[in-house]
Amino acid sequence: MPHRHATASDVARLAGVSQSAVSRAFTPGASIARETRARVEDAARELGYRPNAIARSLTTRRSRIIGVAAAYLQNHFYPEVMEALSRGLHARGYHLLLFTPDAGRDADPQLQEVLSWRVDGLILASTTVSSALASECRAAGIPVLLFNRTSLGTDVSSVTGENLRGGRLIAEFLVAGGHRRLAFLAGIEASSTSRDRERGFAGWLVEHDLPPPLREVGLYDFDAACAAARRLLARPDRPDAIFCGNDHMAIAVAEVARHEFGLRIPRDLSLVGFDDTAPARWPSFSLTSFAQPLQPMVDAAVALICEMIENPAAPTRHEVVHGELVVRGSARIPPEGCVSLGDRLVWRPPRDEA
Amino acid sequence: MPHRHATASDVARLAGVSQSAVSRAFTPGASIARETRARVEDAARELGYRPNAIARSLTTRRSRIIGVAAAYLQNHFYPEVMEALSRGLHARGYHLLLFTPDAGRDADPQLQEVLSWRVDGLILASTTVSSALASECRAAGIPVLLFNRTSLGTDVSSVTGENLRGGRLIAEFLVAGGHRRLAFLAGIEASSTSRDRERGFAGWLVEHDLPPPLREVGLYDFDAACAAARRLLARPDRPDAIFCGNDHMAIAVAEVARHEFGLRIPRDLSLVGFDDTAPARWPSFSLTSFAQPLQPMVDAAVALICEMIENPAAPTRHEVVHGELVVRGSARIPPEGCVSLGDRLVWRPPRDEA
Repeated sequence: MPHRHATASDVARLAGVSQSAVSRAFTPGASIARETRARVEDAARELGYRPNAIARSLTTRRSRIIGVAAAYLQNHFYPEVMEALSRGLHARGYHLLLFTPDAGRDADPQLQEVLSWRVDGLILASTTVSSALASECRAAGIPVLLFNRTSLGTDVSSVTGENLRGGRLIAEFLVAGGHRRLAFLAGIEASSTSRDRERGFAGWLVEHDLPPPLREVGLYDFDAACAAARRLLARPDRPDAIFCGNDHMAIAVAEVARHEFGLRIPRDLSLVGFDDTAPARWPSFSLTSFAQPLQPMVDAAVALICEMIENPAAPTRHEVVHGELVVRGSARIPPEGCVSLGDRLVWRPPRDEA
Repeated sequence: MPHRHATASDVARLAGVSQSAVSRAFTPGASIARETRARVEDAARELGYRPNAIARSLTTRRSRIIGVAAAYLQNHFYPEVMEALSRGLHARGYHLLLFTPDAGRDADPQLQEVLSWRVDGLILASTTVSSALASECRAAGIPVLLFNRTSLGTDVSSVTGENLRGGRLIAEFLVAGGHRRLAFLAGIEASSTSRDRERGFAGWLVEHDLPPPLREVGLYDFDAACAAARRLLARPDRPDAIFCGNDHMAIAVAEVARHEFGLRIPRDLSLVGFDDTAPARWPSFSLTSFAQPLQPMVDAAVALICEMIENPAAPTRHEVVHGELVVRGSARIPPEGCVSLGDRLVWRPPRDEA
């Protein structure tokens, strides 16, 4: 039962104006007399006319659609990112075409299909692309931006938090707090976030002639992190502090430590997370966590993708958004080095060498 | 710097096939010889050709895009819904255009714009539409489906969980557990979910000649729920059980009860939530919660919107997906009436009169 849509020329006829006036009435920012606009709007309402963004996109060669890939929405960080991205892109006149590839893989299979929509750009959150597809997008003039990831072996622009510096600060914080048996709980090992956080953490320890951390893999997954926590905590040389690759895994570790091993946090075990998501602030967890500042990261991503769309020849850029190690109750607090910043306590050792 | 896209006829020429063969090669399910398809794909790769879904949508009058509105992604339930919806729609060949109106308001302002994309259908999660816009969509032949909401005063199809029955079962469960001072923490009062859960809860109490519950409003918001919990728990006639309109608010109440009032759960205070989201299963909360079964609800929504697109004249339907009250440790457990169902304990009183 296809229905016939009223056309712009139907509206022009009824309103007694030119077709170009109809077009201007529906183009944000176009110049048109108020009275003319009102007549067009009345006629459009009467006929059920709606400007056809799809047809317009064929003329302008701009779809005003940004494809956004986000895997792994069970982690609190990404829904908050999606909501902020949707609002930020909308404010710039873009719509967000969502797709959800599997976490831990590149997004190529779904991207191939998304590209047939002639999206104006792609933002990939918590996933990445193969270098083949990145080249294909470049050849087609479609800007690609990685959010909270960088990509090995390809030259794709990105917006990330301070993963390397965050890892270094956490090592310094835990050592200053008197911990001696450190562990790192990795996320998805192929992801740049996990790699960079670990490089920072283990690198700082090595530089300071300290033993490398114990290590388990939690795949950024709640159940996998629980299993990894059981392995770490059952060791005879149980760690006294665990840096978890993100908050989502840190909460899993806290649950296992308390409810299966009867450990008190931080007296028996210190935990530090990464992301500073909402549950980190719940008193039950009170998680010390490196804050990836979500709104500045999203603002940077929206600004960057818009610039890339305006100027597809612009060089690749990697924006790193400054964050802080927010100190709460889940890890022993060093006697000095923490300062109050607004209503938060943050780790700012006298000589920040990170 | 506009770039020229290769066309289907460029590909046909290079591959030495007809344009219709090119079209068939890119139409899922179309009949084409394997060797012909391979030649088309090689030529397409060489030329950087990509079938243009936008142009195709003008011909077929099908955009294969479903607009999805979801407010309120900080509640764990909705990100899980989005991920499942994205996968479910994708499996049917649809893409998901996401928009994020404000929670607690109807989605009209953003919908007006989304409609210009000639979406094939609209799914509204955690939000609703005005009756004016619902009529407009009906006139334009665009199916609208409410997910986890129903709409007052309009006749819009919906998929919901058993809000009314859930509220009734929770009242029965808490009374059977020996609680005598019950309270209800409402969500957004204008939402059908909050209204129906409250009607079921308070209605069962009235039917059994029990006093109506105390009542506060938490707006489905974490901070507002914390404030409401403080008001409830500071009363001289403090409730001994609170039915929270969703898990997100139940967690807020648990945090305030434990960490600000020193209450033990469930010894001093029983809590029941709604949704059965992931944090309900974390041992720190171990929340008794009415399970809205997410995947069956999403499956029902995907099937229904597809039927509505195929047959826009189909009558309005309201699908209610069956759920269970999952019993964990956050509320005193009645001496009888719970049964094991797989690895879960659920409330199944001998004579289920709910």
